[in-house]
Amino acid sequence: MQHSFAPRPVILTGDRTTSPLHLGHYVGSLKNRVALQSTYQQFLLLADAQALTDNAHDPAKVSRNILEIATDYLAVGIDPDLTTICLQSHLPALADLTLLYMNFVTVARLERNPTIKDDIQARGFGRDIPAGFLCYPVAQAADITAFKATVVPVGEDQAPLIEQTNEIVRRINRQAGIDVLREARALIPRVGRLPGVDGKAKMSKSQGNTIPLSATEDQISDAVRRMFTDPLHIRASDPGRVEGNVVFTYLDAFDDDHATVAELKARYVRGGLGDSVVKKRLEDVLQAVVAPIRARRTALARDPSHVLDVVRCGTERARAVTDATLRDVRDALGLFALH
Amino acid sequence: MQHSFAPRPVILTGDRTTSPLHLGHYVGSLKNRVALQSTYQQFLLLADAQALTDNAHDPAKVSRNILEIATDYLAVGIDPDLTTICLQSHLPALADLTLLYMNFVTVARLERNPTIKDDIQARGFGRDIPAGFLCYPVAQAADITAFKATVVPVGEDQAPLIEQTNEIVRRINRQAGIDVLREARALIPRVGRLPGVDGKAKMSKSQGNTIPLSATEDQISDAVRRMFTDPLHIRASDPGRVEGNVVFTYLDAFDDDHATVAELKARYVRGGLGDSVVKKRLEDVLQAVVAPIRARRTALARDPSHVLDVVRCGTERARAVTDATLRDVRDALGLFALH
Repeated sequence: MQHSFAPRPVILTGDRTTSPLHLGHYVGSLKNRVALQSTYQQFLLLADAQALTDNAHDPAKVSRNILEIATDYLAVGIDPDLTTICLQSHLPALADLTLLYMNFVTVARLERNPTIKDDIQARGFGRDIPAGFLCYPVAQAADITAFKATVVPVGEDQAPLIEQTNEIVRRINRQAGIDVLREARALIPRVGRLPGVDGKAKMSKSQGNTIPLSATEDQISDAVRRMFTDPLHIRASDPGRVEGNVVFTYLDAFDDDHATVAELKARYVRGGLGDSVVKKRLEDVLQAVVAPIRARRTALARDPSHVLDVVRCGTERARAVTDATLRDVRDALGLFALH
Repeated sequence: MQHSFAPRPVILTGDRTTSPLHLGHYVGSLKNRVALQSTYQQFLLLADAQALTDNAHDPAKVSRNILEIATDYLAVGIDPDLTTICLQSHLPALADLTLLYMNFVTVARLERNPTIKDDIQARGFGRDIPAGFLCYPVAQAADITAFKATVVPVGEDQAPLIEQTNEIVRRINRQAGIDVLREARALIPRVGRLPGVDGKAKMSKSQGNTIPLSATEDQISDAVRRMFTDPLHIRASDPGRVEGNVVFTYLDAFDDDHATVAELKARYVRGGLGDSVVKKRLEDVLQAVVAPIRARRTALARDPSHVLDVVRCGTERARAVTDATLRDVRDALGLFALH
């Protein structure tokens, strides 16, 4: 039988460059990306332009975190030979496609997007929504289609963004009369969103409830010590609750020995297992996860021009891909080409 | 006294590429542009991207008219050595600046823009406003600022667009902490909007009430013959009305012999002057205006690669200017630069 040279399917993912990545990102996306990079043609977008849609008042933060996150990527095992790491603001075709697609989406449709509605509420924008923020789902459609991605890993709450992208794809294809763009499907991760160490649903650096990928041993110890468990579980002999107990949530996410975790849970529920024992186990697991990442981060910090080179090369490669898509879309729509 | 080498002020103007230009454009803007090109550094933008914001269903029309309008420019006497003729869709910095500025403008502010409100009503968009259309004032701010234009000729009804631009300029400068962008002022033309030959306020090719710059002698004769005068002025001896009488409006706009026009008006109002006499005079004037334009158009049509070259060179020159502004703005805001 002949070997098949079918191209690997394209996957697009990435992060808004607003803060360094933490263990929530590791378990929710980074680990998957490392696993996916050999079977997919993977693009990792440093989404600095999108980050500005609700951080226009703090461009320095958005800029500062670009190389931080690129370093995080390399530290967790993203291989720049397998994955293209690229910088959104430096891919002009993305802006061109966004403006083009904006002519095929109504304001009313954008305002109906459930993800945007939630986001607007969470950010307290009220009536003062920046136009860029309202339109970011269109920019996201530009990102996805520019790379011709057919698989997009997103949280469950972001599925409407993929639906919006596919609506645009269908409108462009209908206008062009040919299928110049392909629809994408959402890849919802198996592991849900990790809570903060304080038990709050949202992890954020500003709340101080995250464990960054650069965390020192002491920071990890400290975070685990402060971790929210079961406030009614006072003595080791008391029966305890596992649901909402952050230590167990983290063990579920990071401890590969599922049988032992199940056993610990049973003992904890029955009573007779102290928080300190469970926390000790979690601390060991987390130290083991973070140690090699921190080591690679330290090595990378010694050679910042290497990280810069990775982003530069990746962005050049991505520029060729996205420029080609812009040309394809413009040609398909019968738009004028000067060259 | 030393010669002053102060740079000429920058003026930005242009046209949406939706139909070939006509005598309304000639008297309302083109004539001015020819006059201004020696005292200003003038950029003429072929606004194909903006044309798409309400013509996404007909990209072919938008594309077809790009070189038509460029030909009109050259035919009326725009000198590509003095004026830079450039193509909006091929200046990627404009899209980048638009998306950047969209983070500094709220949706509510865009919806309050009186020009946009009128436009939305005129186009019958209702609630189905394309996002690109709502945001076109931001794209226009990107155009104006990208060229560092300080003078923008606009119709009286478009003054709010300049106000919107200057609001963005102030917000960017405030965020940057330095005056990286300059405010622009509207240059309202002395001559108001020319009515259609049928007397309707709006001239449009689709209404068949325009005289295109490529009009043949017969088309001009025919248009003047059909021209709306005073429906109650039946016999030459009847007193006639000059207000709303298109023939006199056109004479005011095109006949340089103002004394004779004033005299004709007085005789018409008194009675004793037939429409045919006034129309004959207007026809002679219009034939004299259009003849050299048509001749140059015919010559240019024989060498379409020349027009293409003009647009190509102008766009390259404009690309350098607009790319530099994008870099300046990004630097001033402290945004990351990869190179």
